[in-house]
Amino acid sequence: MSELSGKSIIGFRRGEPNVDSFRAVNPLSGEELTPEYYAASEAEVDQAVQLASRAFEVYRQTSPKLKAAFLRKIAENIEGLGEPLVTRATDETALPPVRIRNETARTCNQLRLFAELIEEGSWVDARIDRGDPMRQPLAKPDVRSMLRPLGPVVVFCASNFPLAFSVAGGDTASALAAGNPVVVKAHRAHPGTAELVGLAVSDALRTSDLPEGVFSLLFGRGEDIGMQLVRHPQIKAGGFTGSRSGGQALMHAAAARPEPIPFYAEMSSVNPIFLFPDALREREEQIAIGLHASVTLGAGQFCTNPGLVFLPTGADSAGLIERLKEMMASTAAFTMLTSRISTAYHEGTEALLRNGAVETLVQPDVDRSSCYCGVGAGLFRTCVDSFLADTNLSAEVFGPATLLVTYSDVEQLPDIARKLEGQLTATIHATDAEQDGVNKLIDVIENKAGRIVFNGFPTGVEVCHSMVHGGPFPATSDGRSTSVGTRAALRFVRPFCYQDVPAIALPDELKDGNPLNIWRMVDGELNKAALSDMTFGC
Amino acid sequence: MSELSGKSIIGFRRGEPNVDSFRAVNPLSGEELTPEYYAASEAEVDQAVQLASRAFEVYRQTSPKLKAAFLRKIAENIEGLGEPLVTRATDETALPPVRIRNETARTCNQLRLFAELIEEGSWVDARIDRGDPMRQPLAKPDVRSMLRPLGPVVVFCASNFPLAFSVAGGDTASALAAGNPVVVKAHRAHPGTAELVGLAVSDALRTSDLPEGVFSLLFGRGEDIGMQLVRHPQIKAGGFTGSRSGGQALMHAAAARPEPIPFYAEMSSVNPIFLFPDALREREEQIAIGLHASVTLGAGQFCTNPGLVFLPTGADSAGLIERLKEMMASTAAFTMLTSRISTAYHEGTEALLRNGAVETLVQPDVDRSSCYCGVGAGLFRTCVDSFLADTNLSAEVFGPATLLVTYSDVEQLPDIARKLEGQLTATIHATDAEQDGVNKLIDVIENKAGRIVFNGFPTGVEVCHSMVHGGPFPATSDGRSTSVGTRAALRFVRPFCYQDVPAIALPDELKDGNPLNIWRMVDGELNKAALSDMTFGC
Repeated sequence: MSELSGKSIIGFRRGEPNVDSFRAVNPLSGEELTPEYYAASEAEVDQAVQLASRAFEVYRQTSPKLKAAFLRKIAENIEGLGEPLVTRATDETALPPVRIRNETARTCNQLRLFAELIEEGSWVDARIDRGDPMRQPLAKPDVRSMLRPLGPVVVFCASNFPLAFSVAGGDTASALAAGNPVVVKAHRAHPGTAELVGLAVSDALRTSDLPEGVFSLLFGRGEDIGMQLVRHPQIKAGGFTGSRSGGQALMHAAAARPEPIPFYAEMSSVNPIFLFPDALREREEQIAIGLHASVTLGAGQFCTNPGLVFLPTGADSAGLIERLKEMMASTAAFTMLTSRISTAYHEGTEALLRNGAVETLVQPDVDRSSCYCGVGAGLFRTCVDSFLADTNLSAEVFGPATLLVTYSDVEQLPDIARKLEGQLTATIHATDAEQDGVNKLIDVIENKAGRIVFNGFPTGVEVCHSMVHGGPFPATSDGRSTSVGTRAALRFVRPFCYQDVPAIALPDELKDGNPLNIWRMVDGELNKAALSDMTFGC
Repeated sequence: MSELSGKSIIGFRRGEPNVDSFRAVNPLSGEELTPEYYAASEAEVDQAVQLASRAFEVYRQTSPKLKAAFLRKIAENIEGLGEPLVTRATDETALPPVRIRNETARTCNQLRLFAELIEEGSWVDARIDRGDPMRQPLAKPDVRSMLRPLGPVVVFCASNFPLAFSVAGGDTASALAAGNPVVVKAHRAHPGTAELVGLAVSDALRTSDLPEGVFSLLFGRGEDIGMQLVRHPQIKAGGFTGSRSGGQALMHAAAARPEPIPFYAEMSSVNPIFLFPDALREREEQIAIGLHASVTLGAGQFCTNPGLVFLPTGADSAGLIERLKEMMASTAAFTMLTSRISTAYHEGTEALLRNGAVETLVQPDVDRSSCYCGVGAGLFRTCVDSFLADTNLSAEVFGPATLLVTYSDVEQLPDIARKLEGQLTATIHATDAEQDGVNKLIDVIENKAGRIVFNGFPTGVEVCHSMVHGGPFPATSDGRSTSVGTRAALRFVRPFCYQDVPAIALPDELKDGNPLNIWRMVDGELNKAALSDMTFGC
């Protein structure tokens, strides 16, 4: 393993030491970790973007095969980091080693999934409409189009996923797969993890004989270098996972540029769960166990953490609430990722504690004496009327707490859902007999969320072709996209059209012979044929 | 044909007369046309949007078959308007009857193309990843996703396409096809045409037994009702074709909403043409004729009008320039669509006339005595150095004028292209022998435009599956999209994901049996199979 240097990675060079520096903090002990990390200077940020811009001229033309090999080499290098990566990530995040190992595996799987996607190749949505010089009154041109990369992309690392949504995480994988150079802004909570992974990417770049500007990793503050990156004229898109305030500041900066750019910010979601009475009667214990696990998984620090649970009032839910109280009260204290997150959790749960319309069922302990970022699980209850009367109650409390909201009639659920903001997920527990009510609720949820989960829990996002990890504002800044799954390759591209362009100047994807053997839409029909094998004017 | 009433169409009701009214003006005579058109009040705008929002609950669930029949009925009704539509549109725009007839045909063809698209059904990008309850360490969920509509869409009519980009034009067709209600803001230049087409849509809605809120048509000013619509919380997306200032005001309003929405503004493009020396030598006369036709087509009032032509200096282009001068000088005067457009054209060409670095080859006459909106064709010349030194020279002059820019070496072309703003199109004329230079230029153009045209002209946009009529800012506000062709159906949708949702609650597109017989991606493989016919875990 390379020694950590604390310096930004700017193509194949390293940043300079600087008075503007910081250290990672062990969330368990509060102890500062070495080395010192130096914030990239304005000039260094510009260098990274200029390198990316130049690299784009080569990388956008790089064959899918070579790009796939590069992605696989990144995965291999990350796996090669071994235990030192686990140790550093654990020190920086207090996440358990098994979580770091699993997240590393997911990160590598994601990279390989995108490698497969681009090697198969059909994702570019190639379309050909053949010309007809004899058409009257005007000759019909030969028109072909496919998705092409946008240009250098800025990726912001997430605090809560030091690997899967950080340096070589989902956004980086999808941007690189689609042919865009990436400039990563490291998260201040885990710079050492970032540097290790960054060096692994750099090494893969060297081995793959690709231009250095395809990847840079910069340390520094979001409000400084993050803003500079989003406003840089050579940056053409961005991806962010984090707080609502941070995400909104960046998305507005992206929209206010002289040339606005696509900016995908994933910001906040309370991931409501709707429990129907029959389901609760049939599976009370199972739901209690699943809900407790989902609320407390990863100390509740997931974008898909369920922060609101709607359940029937009275006897129908009394058992569940008792079971949840027991489990939440006996849950061991958690170490949050950063003191900022534990403070925010403390403030969020305090606001619930002080709210006259909210009953505290399990009061979260915040014990700084034994653990620097320690917090306890929290369970709160209110009724639908109070919930609807106070928008503060639908604010995200990031951490292992949830608010139970009791309703008196399932007929209320669609109206409740209609009042919610945009969400990443919404979950329903119901039986077949309750399908009528469920259908009415789904009708509303389809306009409020990116994903509906049935008789399950929203945490644990399956990385696959059909996953949608996105949703209407403010869950994300742009609900037309997902940050997980192969649909994410569509974030950093746009269609480009070639009219009567000679074969020699066409990308392989659009050549007559279909040399990449991909699915294409030819004259409106999907096939893998070479044009010479097709009858004209079918 | 229905009598024109001058009132907005708000679902199945009509707007009220109002002191805020206007009349269409015949651009040929300056004469005001009856009837008086009443601007929709704030309350009426809100009514239209509320109706659209309610209608969305039904329309988003309407079967592709019924939506397709609705689109076809609109086309049939528009065709049924016959000569009175041609007369009114001609009176309002001074466009020749043959153009109106062709544009009507294109409008109806577009509606039918979208009807076919949704009836075939595969455009929704249905994806299924089958679950595996036995997977270790965690059961794999059943995950399915497809594209779903966004909600009520505001569509702004374009001055220059009274039919194909207006009430039932491209944006309306794609929004309706995708399952979104539409609120159209009529253009003040052709309200009578708008009302006729609006009534045709309304009638189709009634016949199809769809909720009235699926379509409304409002009269009034962009800065009033247009802004109100873009800012309305129930409006979920928008489409606009028009000026850069208007488009930018609306796109910024869309981005600054508490809940930002996708907004597709097509704004300005000078559509550069690059002429290589060999091509010019081989096809001088053909290029001269084609260029003259493209610059003057529709009085130059097309988004794809070529406003910049790069050509070799000296003897290589002398013949072409002489031919163009002859043709442009003998071109009969044009009637522009509105006095605003003819004034803007006058100002744009005046700026070129006064520019010391620009030579006027054909001075455009602006003759208001014989025609209210009359203008002449204009031809100007400058050299590359002057062009690169003055950004004013790359501003769009909307109308039948073009600026010839002479270069000394084809090696200059990529650098010139790099300095251009985003464009809808870029055109190259070259021979096979010039392919090296062409490739270098294409490399740059792929980042600067939405479409490249080879040995042709950018005007005359083919409506087909592979067309891209879009491009980087400021050609459009969002280069990820096209306003022409079936890819436009992707403007007004987002992916939605169903995890372990019971069959009965799934849309037909995602049901096991594939009842709509569409292409789907199942476990990563594209096919039309029912799940029961597939081996698991292939």
